[in-house]
Amino acid sequence: MTAPSRCLYPGSFDPVTFGHLDLIRRGIALFGDLTVAVAVNPSKSPVFTPEERVELLRDQLRGVATVQVTTFRGLVVEYCQRNGFNVILRGLRTVSDFEFEYQMALTNRSLAPGIETVFVMPNERYSYISSRLIKEVLEGGGDVSHFLPREIEEKLRAKLGKPRPAPLQPSAEPRP
Amino acid sequence: MTAPSRCLYPGSFDPVTFGHLDLIRRGIALFGDLTVAVAVNPSKSPVFTPEERVELLRDQLRGVATVQVTTFRGLVVEYCQRNGFNVILRGLRTVSDFEFEYQMALTNRSLAPGIETVFVMPNERYSYISSRLIKEVLEGGGDVSHFLPREIEEKLRAKLGKPRPAPLQPSAEPRP
Amino acid sequence: MTAPSRCLYPGSFDPVTFGHLDLIRRGIALFGDLTVAVAVNPSKSPVFTPEERVELLRDQLRGVATVQVTTFRGLVVEYCQRNGFNVILRGLRTVSDFEFEYQMALTNRSLAPGIETVFVMPNERYSYISSRLIKEVLEGGGDVSHFLPREIEEKLRAKLGKPRPAPLQPSAEPRP
Amino acid sequence: MTAPSRCLYPGSFDPVTFGHLDLIRRGIALFGDLTVAVAVNPSKSPVFTPEERVELLRDQLRGVATVQVTTFRGLVVEYCQRNGFNVILRGLRTVSDFEFEYQMALTNRSLAPGIETVFVMPNERYSYISSRLIKEVLEGGGDVSHFLPREIEEKLRAKLGKPRPAPLQPSAEPRP
Amino acid sequence: MTAPSRCLYPGSFDPVTFGHLDLIRRGIALFGDLTVAVAVNPSKSPVFTPEERVELLRDQLRGVATVQVTTFRGLVVEYCQRNGFNVILRGLRTVSDFEFEYQMALTNRSLAPGIETVFVMPNERYSYISSRLIKEVLEGGGDVSHFLPREIEEKLRAKLGKPRPAPLQPSAEPRP
Amino acid sequence: MTAPSRCLYPGSFDPVTFGHLDLIRRGIALFGDLTVAVAVNPSKSPVFTPEERVELLRDQLRGVATVQVTTFRGLVVEYCQRNGFNVILRGLRTVSDFEFEYQMALTNRSLAPGIETVFVMPNERYSYISSRLIKEVLEGGGDVSHFLPREIEEKLRAKLGKPRPAPLQPSAEPRP
Repeated sequence: MTAPSRCLYPGSFDPVTFGHLDLIRRGIALFGDLTVAVAVNPSKSPVFTPEERVELLRDQLRGVATVQVTTFRGLVVEYCQRNGFNVILRGLRTVSDFEFEYQMALTNRSLAPGIETVFVMPNERYSYISSRLIKEVLEGGGDVSHFLPREIEEKLRAKLGKPRPAPLQPSAEPRP
Repeated sequence: MTAPSRCLYPGSFDPVTFGHLDLIRRGIALFGDLTVAVAVNPSKSPVFTPEERVELLRDQLRGVATVQVTTFRGLVVEYCQRNGFNVILRGLRTVSDFEFEYQMALTNRSLAPGIETVFVMPNERYSYISSRLIKEVLEGGGDVSHFLPREIEEKLRAKLGKPRPAPLQPSAEPRP
Repeated sequence: MTAPSRCLYPGSFDPVTFGHLDLIRRGIALFGDLTVAVAVNPSKSPVFTPEERVELLRDQLRGVATVQVTTFRGLVVEYCQRNGFNVILRGLRTVSDFEFEYQMALTNRSLAPGIETVFVMPNERYSYISSRLIKEVLEGGGDVSHFLPREIEEKLRAKLGKPRPAPLQPSAEPRP
Repeated sequence: MTAPSRCLYPGSFDPVTFGHLDLIRRGIALFGDLTVAVAVNPSKSPVFTPEERVELLRDQLRGVATVQVTTFRGLVVEYCQRNGFNVILRGLRTVSDFEFEYQMALTNRSLAPGIETVFVMPNERYSYISSRLIKEVLEGGGDVSHFLPREIEEKLRAKLGKPRPAPLQPSAEPRP
Repeated sequence: MTAPSRCLYPGSFDPVTFGHLDLIRRGIALFGDLTVAVAVNPSKSPVFTPEERVELLRDQLRGVATVQVTTFRGLVVEYCQRNGFNVILRGLRTVSDFEFEYQMALTNRSLAPGIETVFVMPNERYSYISSRLIKEVLEGGGDVSHFLPREIEEKLRAKLGKPRPAPLQPSAEPRP
Repeated sequence: MTAPSRCLYPGSFDPVTFGHLDLIRRGIALFGDLTVAVAVNPSKSPVFTPEERVELLRDQLRGVATVQVTTFRGLVVEYCQRNGFNVILRGLRTVSDFEFEYQMALTNRSLAPGIETVFVMPNERYSYISSRLIKEVLEGGGDVSHFLPREIEEKLRAKLGKPRPAPLQPSAEPRP
């Protein structure tokens, strides 16, 4: 008999967005239980430290008993093998995502054939947001409250030295 | 607590190929147990009847206790809801696949939000084969034994009135 | 000085969906005034006649003074030239759309250099729906009320001989 | 030592376009000598018979000593093996082309490992034309003289019962 | 009644190319009048200062009464709202362009629903050129006179310390 | 008569992988003889010097009389023109590859119309590997012996200060 699947959702989460939270909920529904793993990548320059990113995730997932949050270094498949995970969860939004993830999934399979990467599509409301784009919008002075939780937006503003903008006067809706 | 996932792998399977069998094995490893569902689509003109396609699948999966094979009509999400499946498994090979599957997955989600479509990539050896292409190659007189089990090839040849070709004299391998 | 732009939005509209209506509203906002042109294509087998499709569009657009609905035969650029349109409006949702529309737009430009095709993206809620898919879902017995107006759904059900299904028992939402 | 490459350029050529002629010239420059092979496909409904398509190609290529034109049935790799070709030439214009050609090339390689498919890009002037689109434009009453030789256009008009249209009055060029 | 559209064409323009000029002309034809807005992005390292880029654009557009050139900082939608623009013009050349622009357009729409992004395709002659590629070719010693106006090429050569190369001896045209 | 084709295969080769070697063998089979050209690009930070990369290639290609290995600076078409090459060979694996290569090939053609870029697809076993990804896997502590020759892996480990990892205990194969 096959042992039950244990699922890891790896990523940068710098910071966690509504898109990530959507995917986490889908992963829990699929596998009963999920570990979110924040990548510690010394060569990138994240806004939040790995510990801060874990903290932000835990704040959002408080009360969800079936989710754990941790960090990892190095190859995700090695972390999986050392810790007994056999499923890697990833989101797919665009064709560019697909090609990158295809290459990563086949590379990981060649490194560790017993670990499977599964893909799930986030809600289409989140199909165009990314942590990188949120940071650009916030740097440019925009409102990002549709893209990530309010308390994380506040912490991101504090990090980037960008106070909340005064509300723009509404432009007319382009409807007849 | 979340109920365990019950997974359906729907498709035409006209006939089953090595690519399908690869995906079935991956689905079992992920979800412990899997139902393969052959679509009964009155508007298409398949080579094999739904009953024959079920039979070919069962022959290949004999002895695998954790897999069932069945047929379905109409919408796959409706079949899932009536029969207690909450996961639809699909393979992803190409960008064209991705766009079509993305559209289907979001449509199905809008029809039945509690059912999740998950995607897995087949072995890259099978990344370019399809039942349609196998039929074209066989009609054209080619050898398809790399693409599907020998006994299914025989039945497909019988259906299409195409006896096995005499082996071609080997062309020189394009290597120095 | 350049004459004001006069915009045509051509398509099959068999039948009009929420995605089409979204695009029509965006076109009016851009060009002040818009003509929707239903293609009369003898080689296709539409569900609704051109006259019915015009009627369905007019019902939805009643009271919008800045929109006209008409039919056309043959090449869209020829219709534009005979009737004084210099802009063709089209929606873009997916990479597949993009490649097809790119080919059409460059062909049309080579036939009529003075007519420009402009592309607008529909609301992401409508990024995955199409008239073809709606017909498939409805044929399969599904609920399409998120995709097109209720009164058009009724007419489509009548045409296809598909009464409204009894509501499915709700599946559990996949959220913790 | 490797024997010299012998190159086949297979296709439907229904009818030959400026894009095909561009690719033929590039193939001759690359391989010194080229055979154009018109597919005889009983399940399609071409406008021109295979013999007519060969004739149209020969008319265009008259005086080019290094090109031959022929027909073939069945699998292109089998034709190559029987006739001593080790290279298949194909054009690549779009992402959709790429995915289809990738699948065909890998399938053909698996059938005949000694035959290589090589891809060349046509002049960007021809990146959006196809025989199918030319027929649609001509059926719709448009001018296709930018897309294929005049004498072939005449024969296509005769076949489709579409006399040359009166010239449209020029639309204003969209330039300031 | 809807107010007339006011259109902004934002970009880096480092420096302006024939592709940009083609798009500017199309934008004027569509909207009667156009503002080109040079992005002042402190985190990039452009070859020309924003003021120089504005100057190069104005030189090329001298005598075109319906075009203005300006600079902007921060988010383009904020600039539009402060200055009364309701249309953003962008060019679309490739699938990669499409995916990036799709993400930007939906993000901008979520920030400012009353502003619409419209896409136009440049002439296929310019479908493969970009300011970045022009700089690479010029750095490598190549001739870029097909890609941008002669006087801009001269200024770019001066900036990059690359005098015009002696003409290469012509290679044989690959035609029979 | 057309002169025989002389083919150059340019790239970074930092270091050479099984995918590159597969393509080199295909290029020799097509053109009889091939020159591999290592790009000397001062603005990148390669792991191996150009001389080392040439040495690694020569070690792998020892005994293959029909292949030469060299370095080049600046534009590849200029190198071709100075040295009598009329064909550039490139591999195509993914849609992203395709779009980048399409842009490069058309740019190179506009710079030197007599030089043709031809594309060949590597074995699907190598469709997802790249020098960049190999370096990432090796940095992360993974086993890259499926991706490049053993002796090159050793030299890469020495350069990056990454000794060979102890073998992981095998994870169960995901097969029933």
